[in-house]
Amino acid sequence: MNLMIKSLEIEGVFAKPLKQIETNCGTVLQMLRNDSSSFNQFGEIYFSEIHPRMINAWKRHKQQAQNLTVPLGNIRLVIYDDRPTSSSCGKTIEYEIGRPENYKLIHIPPMLWYGFQEISGKVSIIANCPDKPHDPEEGESKPADSNQIPYQWEA
Amino acid sequence: MNLMIKSLEIEGVFAKPLKQIETNCGTVLQMLRNDSSSFNQFGEIYFSEIHPRMINAWKRHKQQAQNLTVPLGNIRLVIYDDRPTSSSCGKTIEYEIGRPENYKLIHIPPMLWYGFQEISGKVSIIANCPDKPHDPEEGESKPADSNQIPYQWEA
Repeated sequence: MNLMIKSLEIEGVFAKPLKQIETNCGTVLQMLRNDSSSFNQFGEIYFSEIHPRMINAWKRHKQQAQNLTVPLGNIRLVIYDDRPTSSSCGKTIEYEIGRPENYKLIHIPPMLWYGFQEISGKVSIIANCPDKPHDPEEGESKPADSNQIPYQWEA
Repeated sequence: MNLMIKSLEIEGVFAKPLKQIETNCGTVLQMLRNDSSSFNQFGEIYFSEIHPRMINAWKRHKQQAQNLTVPLGNIRLVIYDDRPTSSSCGKTIEYEIGRPENYKLIHIPPMLWYGFQEISGKVSIIANCPDKPHDPEEGESKPADSNQIPYQWEA
């Protein structure tokens, strides 16, 4: 972990500010390098569009860690920890991620519930570079209004 | 190489159609997985915005292979081969890459000249997942109007 990485309130989660480099052609947006202290291993890279104001929640992965950023638009990311052995069990954390003010990488280890809401009012794009490729067998979901997660999404 | 990968006219270059999966929240856009036949190794993932109609050319990498796609907008990618020992030495190839019709991965091995032009008329985003992280020492460039490359960009 280098000095750019802030430890935050949920065990194993971190946020790392990312560089936005202005060029004549447009902005170059860094995400993840194999020689970065925040890199573990490469599983996959894919993108998810999210329509204005939509909510995509809740998901949990048993084995896969997420490395997320938002190269277009802005989203709210919410993470909830119900891991019985975690020092932060019961905590919920919110991030705003996107451009230009909040361009950062969020690392989410396995076994945490998380979800998104689009907040720019335009289509946003989430980039995810998890440490293992997608496997439908290892993911779980709950509805956005599940009463098992103490968070109320904005309508 | 699987059946989805078309071999094209420049030695070592290939284009692979990528999946766009419609969901309630928006389109999920695949790019590259570590278990894909088109994957070699992970160096970095970053994004480059390109303003409407702009040209970003020419570049060449001595050691780094590029894996490019366009999750937002559309670009024209041009590749020129001047490798003396290549079976396609002297050839130029053009691709249109972007969404929704031309969502695909292009692999460019080292030592080929390449450049882009934005063609959607809006800001486009290029995602690049090269096999080595960026090293300013191993890249070279020529101006877009270099007479050493037999290609005329549209004004």
